[in-house]
Amino acid sequence: MTQPVHGGNLAWAAALAGCPPDAILDFSASISPLGPPKSAIAALVDNLDNLSHYPDPNYWELRTALGKLHQLPPDWILPSNGSAELLTWAGWDLAQLESTVLITPAFSDYWRSLNAFAANVVPCPLVLDKQDLNVSTPDRAHKCGLLLNNPHNPTGKLFKREQILPYLEQFALVVVDEAFMDFLPPDREQSLITQIQKYPNLVILRSLTKFYSLPGLRLGYAIAHPQTLQRWQAMRDPWAVNTLAEAAALAVIQDTTFQQQTWAWLPEARNQLFAGLKQIPRLQPLESAANFLLVHSERSTSHLQQSLLKEHQILIRDCLSFPELGDRYFRVAVRLNNQNERLIQAIQALC
Amino acid sequence: MTQPVHGGNLAWAAALAGCPPDAILDFSASISPLGPPKSAIAALVDNLDNLSHYPDPNYWELRTALGKLHQLPPDWILPSNGSAELLTWAGWDLAQLESTVLITPAFSDYWRSLNAFAANVVPCPLVLDKQDLNVSTPDRAHKCGLLLNNPHNPTGKLFKREQILPYLEQFALVVVDEAFMDFLPPDREQSLITQIQKYPNLVILRSLTKFYSLPGLRLGYAIAHPQTLQRWQAMRDPWAVNTLAEAAALAVIQDTTFQQQTWAWLPEARNQLFAGLKQIPRLQPLESAANFLLVHSERSTSHLQQSLLKEHQILIRDCLSFPELGDRYFRVAVRLNNQNERLIQAIQALC
Repeated sequence: MTQPVHGGNLAWAAALAGCPPDAILDFSASISPLGPPKSAIAALVDNLDNLSHYPDPNYWELRTALGKLHQLPPDWILPSNGSAELLTWAGWDLAQLESTVLITPAFSDYWRSLNAFAANVVPCPLVLDKQDLNVSTPDRAHKCGLLLNNPHNPTGKLFKREQILPYLEQFALVVVDEAFMDFLPPDREQSLITQIQKYPNLVILRSLTKFYSLPGLRLGYAIAHPQTLQRWQAMRDPWAVNTLAEAAALAVIQDTTFQQQTWAWLPEARNQLFAGLKQIPRLQPLESAANFLLVHSERSTSHLQQSLLKEHQILIRDCLSFPELGDRYFRVAVRLNNQNERLIQAIQALC
Repeated sequence: MTQPVHGGNLAWAAALAGCPPDAILDFSASISPLGPPKSAIAALVDNLDNLSHYPDPNYWELRTALGKLHQLPPDWILPSNGSAELLTWAGWDLAQLESTVLITPAFSDYWRSLNAFAANVVPCPLVLDKQDLNVSTPDRAHKCGLLLNNPHNPTGKLFKREQILPYLEQFALVVVDEAFMDFLPPDREQSLITQIQKYPNLVILRSLTKFYSLPGLRLGYAIAHPQTLQRWQAMRDPWAVNTLAEAAALAVIQDTTFQQQTWAWLPEARNQLFAGLKQIPRLQPLESAANFLLVHSERSTSHLQQSLLKEHQILIRDCLSFPELGDRYFRVAVRLNNQNERLIQAIQALC
């Protein structure tokens, strides 16, 4: 059994660990350990008898609620079947341009969508130990695109708003995937949503599945100029968001209790995990603003991954899908304190 | 409040009828009145605690189960977020060809996906009172596509397998939307699935949402040559089917009790509705093999639609989105006997 692609790896891990999939302690997917919120499950249960009707293809109620959240008119928002659904159309738009600068290491689905439409991709490697975003601007940037995420996955770097804004003046299209931005509390986040009405060449992708722990339900949205979203809507699946996901979204975005819990949990738990990993010889975690840590290892992480599975039923994310990182890095989600401790002790025992 | 597009019309209807949306007796959507099956709801409830993991992006379990159902290897099947999701990619493939012959009147989403990618569409009108499928084959058919559905929506006509097969020898690509084929029992259905391995230029789209009454959940699949499906998979959303839809699909395709109930209910209920409508002066229903009837009316159906809503809280489907039909046709789903009777009596009272 070879290791499958992202999202299909629990069955592989369970087979290797010799246990059922739900016995695996999964640090590989960057999903909050606090969720799903009870408000989401209640909304799902309430809507189980509401499946015999089509969803409203305009998703007007959800657009209005998301618009209220971000202080934007509803037509600047397009709900989606996870943010990955809209990456396809972002990739389509970028492929129409002369080239696309892609900040690397990059989530493999960026490559998927850019390659699907034969985009001309110019990788722009991040310097891992610096906080800069030094994009090498092409000569004809006004005919080119830029694709990045903020906070950056897999490094966890957070770029300040002011670091990205200059590129909006230069590039024809800037796509910023903010899938992990909601893990930052309102006083620390660096979202470009406040700038969207100034820049018709800006597209922001957001996810509701990481923060609210609902990747199985598929739930995301794009924020962009209404003309862009209308164009995408003509191409894409007209009923992209299922009724249950829509109901859950309406519930969780109002769940301020869950939001506060998450913002209270994360910094401390991340510090604990960071400190625990840092004191293990030959491991070096990178500072992160997100709910995951990228860790440099002087030894093979494939070997470490397999040992953690076989001996401790713990799954970490190798970085083989990021060619710039390869076998000397791994990524771990920040989980609950006792789970983080279990990971630290398991790695210590193996190192 | 103007009448919204397909799927968003219950709120409009409720406002016009002056009642809550769930008080409307909805004949406008061609959804089975028998479902959702209990097996589907049980599968949903069982999986509510399984949303913190991504679905397997290869959907191997579901592909294997659907493959078993149709006696095909799993890689000939691609599950989707409703069949409409895959219409986008069928439209993309058709748009690469010189032209696409489209059997009309045609579901508006066919136009959406063909126009989205600037396909050159050649409409081929059905003769409504004949059972023929006389496609005007273009001169260079081997460079062209053909898109039809079987049974045909909105007429309910069923084409025999042998009526379509010759076009597979002529056209570069034939897309057959069989969204309503499962309403025909095994001894009457005319699916081309049995032919799929002989024709790499054949794509079949199937829906699980009409027969099982789950349009809110989004659930469909394509059956085609593995190379076609792999190509589509590179372009589309990698996690198109949410975990709950996948679980429901696995349950319902094995629910032979529900299937038998549907096949037992439909012919009799359709006959009842057909006979009831036919005896109303100036109405003429067309013979149908599906779970809906197209009805010709000598008077304006917009007027009838509004009166049925305001006076009887009943919603029928006007045919304004089918330009070939316009205001002299309406479509009604076949529902339970007492509901069909209510519709017949309401129309009688108005005519």
